[in-house]
Amino acid sequence: MARSQTPLRIEQAALQLFNDYGEPNITTNRIADELDISPGNLHYHFRTKQDLIDTLFEQFERRMLGLLAASEIEQTDIEDAWFFLHLVFETITEYRFLYRDLVELCIRSSDLHRRMRGILKLSMQTADQLMGGLIRAGRMQANQQERESMVRNIVLISSFWIGFDQILESRQQPRPDRAVWQVMTLVSPYLKGEAKAQFNELASAYHHP
Amino acid sequence: MARSQTPLRIEQAALQLFNDYGEPNITTNRIADELDISPGNLHYHFRTKQDLIDTLFEQFERRMLGLLAASEIEQTDIEDAWFFLHLVFETITEYRFLYRDLVELCIRSSDLHRRMRGILKLSMQTADQLMGGLIRAGRMQANQQERESMVRNIVLISSFWIGFDQILESRQQPRPDRAVWQVMTLVSPYLKGEAKAQFNELASAYHHP
Repeated sequence: MARSQTPLRIEQAALQLFNDYGEPNITTNRIADELDISPGNLHYHFRTKQDLIDTLFEQFERRMLGLLAASEIEQTDIEDAWFFLHLVFETITEYRFLYRDLVELCIRSSDLHRRMRGILKLSMQTADQLMGGLIRAGRMQANQQERESMVRNIVLISSFWIGFDQILESRQQPRPDRAVWQVMTLVSPYLKGEAKAQFNELASAYHHP
Repeated sequence: MARSQTPLRIEQAALQLFNDYGEPNITTNRIADELDISPGNLHYHFRTKQDLIDTLFEQFERRMLGLLAASEIEQTDIEDAWFFLHLVFETITEYRFLYRDLVELCIRSSDLHRRMRGILKLSMQTADQLMGGLIRAGRMQANQQERESMVRNIVLISSFWIGFDQILESRQQPRPDRAVWQVMTLVSPYLKGEAKAQFNELASAYHHP
């Protein structure tokens, strides 16, 4: 393969292997084997496994920050929220190894920890703003305490549905569609009028437990 | 220390160190050091670190199965559910290292995975039965789809609040009280009449975000 493509191919192979077997179970030698390159060649591009993790985390972070920044706040309707969650959960699925051993990765790298905490806090802010949009549009009714607890539950479930599903259902592929539904049901009891009907419509289309 | 006390003291030291620093970061030598015993003495009682993990998991499993079996189904009221969750979350706090690296522990030991999956499934059953009790007592109203999604969300949050809090708030001690509140707010929108009032009363007493 062309020299310039090597780093990209290393990243892709690492992402796939980390996702399939878990980052703790994959060595850089295993990644080099997979690509049929020498360990020396791999280490020329990525000095340590942590460098490779950091590179993949950066890609993930860029995608997530892009999504969170682009979320429309003022005119939220239920379908927008649903679609937005889908985009977020597809991204999480793509980089799912990060969530599988999240606490351990955060302990090992304080930089990754700080940035992941930033993503979680921004996610909480976005969730709160989306709810604010629904409330202002008369589509939702919730007091401050209910809103706070929803925000925390939304981001917790968004962060750990991958791990939960893996423990409960092992070999199955991740199911971001079901996770979106799980998160939407946190909000649905607080919806009003047309928004409630819209939720029920979407729920009957997307609900396949 | 007396010979017969050694295994117990090893278990206690291992539990504390695993909880404080994470199981992946603690070797059996570190545990032996902590107790001022030789690695050989430790290995006489626990051949491998996995044996020690398995012993601690067994203690945790016995406690959890005891709690889940004892839960009163027929006459659920809100205060019972609240108290029950407290007992469960105190137990999870005590053995929190299991939840910190849960996916990795389950990958490493298929026996532990099978048994943890059993605990999660039994927890889902118990949550569903408790809700059934509330519905039969006229304290709650929810359809089948809402009930299913609540069950899944309840057990997911029960399993991962420790990890979530650790990433978001680092050095703080676990807060099972807040986690109980988070889980109860999943159910509260579906409560009716007196049960709703009872929830609000408990919420204002226990809610310290």
